[in-house]
Amino acid sequence: MSEKQKLFIGIDLGGTNIGAGVVTPEGGILSRDKIKTKAEGGSDTVIERIAKIMDRVCDQAGVTHDEVQAVGIGAPGAIDVKKGSVIVAPNLRWNNFPLADSLSKHTHWPVTVDNDVNVGTWGEFCVGGGRHTEDMLGIFIGTGIGGGLAIHNKLYYGHHMTAGEIGHTLVKADGSLGRRTLENLASRTAIADILRKLIAANHPSVITELTEGNLSKIKSRVIAEAFAQGDQLTTLVLQDAAKYVGIAIANTVTMLSLPHVVVGGGLTEALGKPWIKMVNEQYKKYVFPHGHDCKVVASELGDDAGIIGAGLLACERLSQKSE
Amino acid sequence: MSEKQKLFIGIDLGGTNIGAGVVTPEGGILSRDKIKTKAEGGSDTVIERIAKIMDRVCDQAGVTHDEVQAVGIGAPGAIDVKKGSVIVAPNLRWNNFPLADSLSKHTHWPVTVDNDVNVGTWGEFCVGGGRHTEDMLGIFIGTGIGGGLAIHNKLYYGHHMTAGEIGHTLVKADGSLGRRTLENLASRTAIADILRKLIAANHPSVITELTEGNLSKIKSRVIAEAFAQGDQLTTLVLQDAAKYVGIAIANTVTMLSLPHVVVGGGLTEALGKPWIKMVNEQYKKYVFPHGHDCKVVASELGDDAGIIGAGLLACERLSQKSE
Repeated sequence: MSEKQKLFIGIDLGGTNIGAGVVTPEGGILSRDKIKTKAEGGSDTVIERIAKIMDRVCDQAGVTHDEVQAVGIGAPGAIDVKKGSVIVAPNLRWNNFPLADSLSKHTHWPVTVDNDVNVGTWGEFCVGGGRHTEDMLGIFIGTGIGGGLAIHNKLYYGHHMTAGEIGHTLVKADGSLGRRTLENLASRTAIADILRKLIAANHPSVITELTEGNLSKIKSRVIAEAFAQGDQLTTLVLQDAAKYVGIAIANTVTMLSLPHVVVGGGLTEALGKPWIKMVNEQYKKYVFPHGHDCKVVASELGDDAGIIGAGLLACERLSQKSE
Repeated sequence: MSEKQKLFIGIDLGGTNIGAGVVTPEGGILSRDKIKTKAEGGSDTVIERIAKIMDRVCDQAGVTHDEVQAVGIGAPGAIDVKKGSVIVAPNLRWNNFPLADSLSKHTHWPVTVDNDVNVGTWGEFCVGGGRHTEDMLGIFIGTGIGGGLAIHNKLYYGHHMTAGEIGHTLVKADGSLGRRTLENLASRTAIADILRKLIAANHPSVITELTEGNLSKIKSRVIAEAFAQGDQLTTLVLQDAAKYVGIAIANTVTMLSLPHVVVGGGLTEALGKPWIKMVNEQYKKYVFPHGHDCKVVASELGDDAGIIGAGLLACERLSQKSE
């Protein structure tokens, strides 16, 4: 490290934890750490904790402050990307909070803010499951279902800056009102809910054992364990979810003639390759023929997607400014 | 016309007729005419007839050949836009036919070829129902259902050049295999088929009268007449179709965060404003909240969309080349 490096800090700002890392322009991570968000302490507390974790990951990487060029933050909620502010983020209890401006009081680095799903999509697009394509859908299945689009090598935002909301597309016209969107049919929350109701209606499942009868605890890990053990009920419910995920991916690929889709998120990470295979099988049933050679692959960066994506987005924005 | 004008010829190449017109760079039409395609005569015949109608519309507009800068053609089928060739067009009986090259033997004008739906979308985008927006979905409901996307003031093609195929998106997961796509649920063909079956099953409808009992003749005009008369069966079937069109539009607007949608096509033209109102009501039920201020409006160019769009696309391509 004799020569001065050009580095970036990526921040994955969640409702519970703040993840951070020093990221190289090539998408490598030199250090990573996390700290509790303490959103209940208010925005000043959160900002101080972001500043603290930034210092810490710099120290851990042995990086001086003038080697860092910029900071990128992925935040959960609706973001005004141009202003670097959070329009609304329920997990953080924020409404119209000027995140970039507030943080710039603690640092001289330029701060880029984007939605956490866009940031994850950008990470996977640059150095993860989508690194060999120019156009990509990222779909992240966890507590909810989020999506992001990279088109012509850029994040695509759309007119109202809300593009990519695949979780809010409809995949079942005839469901009852509350269960029509993809998120309401195939997120971890929806799957846990469906399992809970079926088990309560006396359908046998190993999940009863795994949760010691406490069905309010059906987390991704439990669903994955039941699935790995070949639990019939869990497999059937996941097959149904895979169908809806497959339809939503197929519709997007058909509309945008996409060559590549990356599937990630907490539930996907927990379920692993057999889940990606199920989604692929369903997707192929529903896609318009010309889209058949579109690749639907697993995310590769896991929990690091947010940190790396945020760091690389800060890098991208900085290079745009200097052009 | 003392000064030399810069004009374009727009061709709307269909399986039955070839429409053509002399188009100004502002999207005005100086002349229009049509001629039978005679696809059964083979590609040489069709090319000769295109050349003939081009001469005719020039004569009718009093335009000399050197005032025409370029020709644009919208053709029904899969198009290789870069080569200007038709990959496959069942209505024309063409497979891998070099349309632009073949036509250039008859004229020195540069020839631009695109899919008829893209061309119609471009016409509506430039000077029709979408002339005040930068991003737009065009959806055309007739014998089939086609769609086109204009994004950031350009036609969006996607990786396999097949973007916009909204008719092939799924809007009803639980339908039987053959009826799952939008086109299979809400095209004029599908609507006529549903009406035919319901009438055959003794549901009363004024359509029996309007077709003099010949139910193989349920054209857009007949559906529109029954709808205008308040026929209950027709209204119910159209409401169902409007729901699926609304869902498909909502999904696209949600994914792409679009500000504007233009609805056109033969069935839409025949049904008029009440149909657009029905589609709007359904669309609003299903769109992700942020998309609510997206406008869903009727096409304004009618049959001229193809001719104007083709002319303006030729104009656009020529200006790109000279940049």
